[in-house]
Amino acid sequence: MSSLTDGIIDIAMRSAEVVPDLPVTFAKLSLLDWMTCAIAGVGEPLAIRLRQMAANEGGRPLASVIGGMRAPPRMAALVNGATSHALDYDDTHFAHVGHLSVGIYPAALAIAEMQDVSAEEMVTAFLLGAEGGIRVGMTLGRAHYNHGFHQTATAGAFGATLAAGRLLGLDQRQMRHALGLCATRASGLTSQFGSMGKPYNAGIAAANGVECATLASLGFTSADDGLMGHQGFVGAHLPGGIEAASRSPECASYLFPDNKYKLHACCHGLHPMIEALLSAKEASGLIFDDISSFALSTNPRWLAVCDIKRPRTGLEVKFSYNWLAGMTLRGDNTGDDRLFTDSLAGDAALAGFAERISVTGDDNLTDLQARGEIRLTDGRGIPVWFDLADPFAPEVLAEKLQRKSSTMIGDTSSVIWDLHPRLGQLGARDVAGALLAAGADGQAVNG
Amino acid sequence: MSSLTDGIIDIAMRSAEVVPDLPVTFAKLSLLDWMTCAIAGVGEPLAIRLRQMAANEGGRPLASVIGGMRAPPRMAALVNGATSHALDYDDTHFAHVGHLSVGIYPAALAIAEMQDVSAEEMVTAFLLGAEGGIRVGMTLGRAHYNHGFHQTATAGAFGATLAAGRLLGLDQRQMRHALGLCATRASGLTSQFGSMGKPYNAGIAAANGVECATLASLGFTSADDGLMGHQGFVGAHLPGGIEAASRSPECASYLFPDNKYKLHACCHGLHPMIEALLSAKEASGLIFDDISSFALSTNPRWLAVCDIKRPRTGLEVKFSYNWLAGMTLRGDNTGDDRLFTDSLAGDAALAGFAERISVTGDDNLTDLQARGEIRLTDGRGIPVWFDLADPFAPEVLAEKLQRKSSTMIGDTSSVIWDLHPRLGQLGARDVAGALLAAGADGQAVNG
Repeated sequence: MSSLTDGIIDIAMRSAEVVPDLPVTFAKLSLLDWMTCAIAGVGEPLAIRLRQMAANEGGRPLASVIGGMRAPPRMAALVNGATSHALDYDDTHFAHVGHLSVGIYPAALAIAEMQDVSAEEMVTAFLLGAEGGIRVGMTLGRAHYNHGFHQTATAGAFGATLAAGRLLGLDQRQMRHALGLCATRASGLTSQFGSMGKPYNAGIAAANGVECATLASLGFTSADDGLMGHQGFVGAHLPGGIEAASRSPECASYLFPDNKYKLHACCHGLHPMIEALLSAKEASGLIFDDISSFALSTNPRWLAVCDIKRPRTGLEVKFSYNWLAGMTLRGDNTGDDRLFTDSLAGDAALAGFAERISVTGDDNLTDLQARGEIRLTDGRGIPVWFDLADPFAPEVLAEKLQRKSSTMIGDTSSVIWDLHPRLGQLGARDVAGALLAAGADGQAVNG
Repeated sequence: MSSLTDGIIDIAMRSAEVVPDLPVTFAKLSLLDWMTCAIAGVGEPLAIRLRQMAANEGGRPLASVIGGMRAPPRMAALVNGATSHALDYDDTHFAHVGHLSVGIYPAALAIAEMQDVSAEEMVTAFLLGAEGGIRVGMTLGRAHYNHGFHQTATAGAFGATLAAGRLLGLDQRQMRHALGLCATRASGLTSQFGSMGKPYNAGIAAANGVECATLASLGFTSADDGLMGHQGFVGAHLPGGIEAASRSPECASYLFPDNKYKLHACCHGLHPMIEALLSAKEASGLIFDDISSFALSTNPRWLAVCDIKRPRTGLEVKFSYNWLAGMTLRGDNTGDDRLFTDSLAGDAALAGFAERISVTGDDNLTDLQARGEIRLTDGRGIPVWFDLADPFAPEVLAEKLQRKSSTMIGDTSSVIWDLHPRLGQLGARDVAGALLAAGADGQAVNG
């Protein structure tokens, strides 16, 4: 058995007492941000169709389905995973190459609700599952993603399996079988991007986690090391086989605090520039009309992704440095998904401002960094800089996420954020109940 | 959109009137053989655990679960797929590189039962889904299998999707979305062989087919060509990408009649030799004690698989030319799985006979062929030859499969084979009902 498989099982079975506070604090913020995204997605066509399937199947109502029903845990995990990823506004772990919360929280919540454990136990299971999922994602690496696989779905399923397995009380041997079953069950392709298949991938991760952990709890067995063994999941899902796997990081540290949160309703590649401009604005009291030009440097890989010079639709605006620079500097609420309409692409002020912007690739910048200079009409230059790798302090992040929540789901936001200071006293069923209630509200808001 | 994706959709939507009789005849025999395997597997530990999961989930009892319960179609397909592959005694399509019935029939039967269509319509949906699945398996080819993927699960899921989609009445556009969803959902690894993960793979294929076709019927959409498009299923699941795909065969012909049936409870590699010896025995009235030696030639790939010279366990006997030659020549019923005990490995007569056998690899033989010579104590030589590629006539095959069924499940066999002459008048629900009833009997027989 490989050290990775051993390592992530050890992580998932770690006593809650030895888990430090900081990653737990971030995991709680992820829970609330995930709930926001889930509630905001509840009226999306794909979410409605999945709830229809769940209603048609029926079954024991053990787990809450966002949007107002209950279902068996596997089905709840499937629907909630896809629903929460519908708007693509959830968190990203760049080293893992994927979205953690949408694949793992739905599995953890469904099983925690069934098992009637505390909210703290649910959050800890999510965190430790995510730590395992991150390591699987890093071991698969960019080569896996570049070959067409979506870590959110593939590595995410292993994280979901670990989280669900911990909450089901699996022993080490059962956990190994659960991972082995996940190895033959996990799937998900990036070629689904732009279709309902992308959010479905998050639901797949969550549903596979619940199914594999459940089967292992019933005594179902699998290959001994389905993840890292000969032609196991990692070897089969890399063109070069297991030899092409990246070295997995050691297991003592916590990687979850590197998780990044979307605070703007656009491509993550634009976020460093937006934060840089917001910082400069706050520091210098910049006024939109006083700016004569803006020169931006960014990691070259983003030029092919989000440098649409003259967007034609609201969707294209989400991939445009030119438009987001103007929107940020004039004070638009870039956190509001509803701003990104097709008419925004025809905004004359933004189109005019775009003429004053230049974007250059710079290999010295990571894909989380932005550097630039604003030139004012009076000739002064103002340097701007931001590195998303520098984490926000938890209290700063909490405030930003709460504002995002309020922007996205209005008053319903308070149902979620009222839980925050009380999570230590609540049960997982209280969290699930709030999600169910808020989702029904959210549906009305968005419907 | 690729010609393969177009082609298999066209096949699946073909009018039943234009489908020739011969493949339908074989598909009916596959149904009965699949039911035999499913009933024989019902007492296996993995089947019991899956039924436990189904019972825990509950849900609308729309589809029969072998072993005596009803469940939503997806769950029924999962349990029935894995249960029917538990003994590894089901059919094989060598060009497809996998087992067709165990992945596709459970999906077809579950949806057909829910839709209350005729047994003929169910068989036709299976057949046309299988024709598509075969082409996906051939397109993925040996490279896919050699890299660690199990066509039974992967290509099988596309066959199951097509069969379920036809029975749900999907239009062409919905069928394309169903295949697209299957592209991001399908999975299954050969490294699970020897564990419960292998039969689980068959259940995965069937369950994925039901889920993806169901979602498409509810309006869920996907990538436009998830199967053959850029980084679609085929490209992602071949080390060399889509360029490494094999050319898919044209769609006008029927490839299902090449399907092969296991008539002996051992490795498929041994079957050509066994049939060659049975033919020679029938033609020449051979007597075991009159044989002084037997020289066998076989495709060299089998030497690494099933040429265990001196087996130590019943399982090893299943991979031994030496033992199966002796068993066949002395008249053992090699179709009876229960013969293969550990004490058979210590059988003195077979051990003595093994001294008189030589096995040689010959590149001129396909992996479906066996050639050899029996030398008698009186000096005479008797040549033996068999090519599994030559299909049995349907009536010969029916007789052999019925004997296998009777060997495996005793009197319960008649419940199944009594359906055979009446299939044209029955509904899918009659077939499902017989499976349910026979499975409950079978459980008692095997329990």
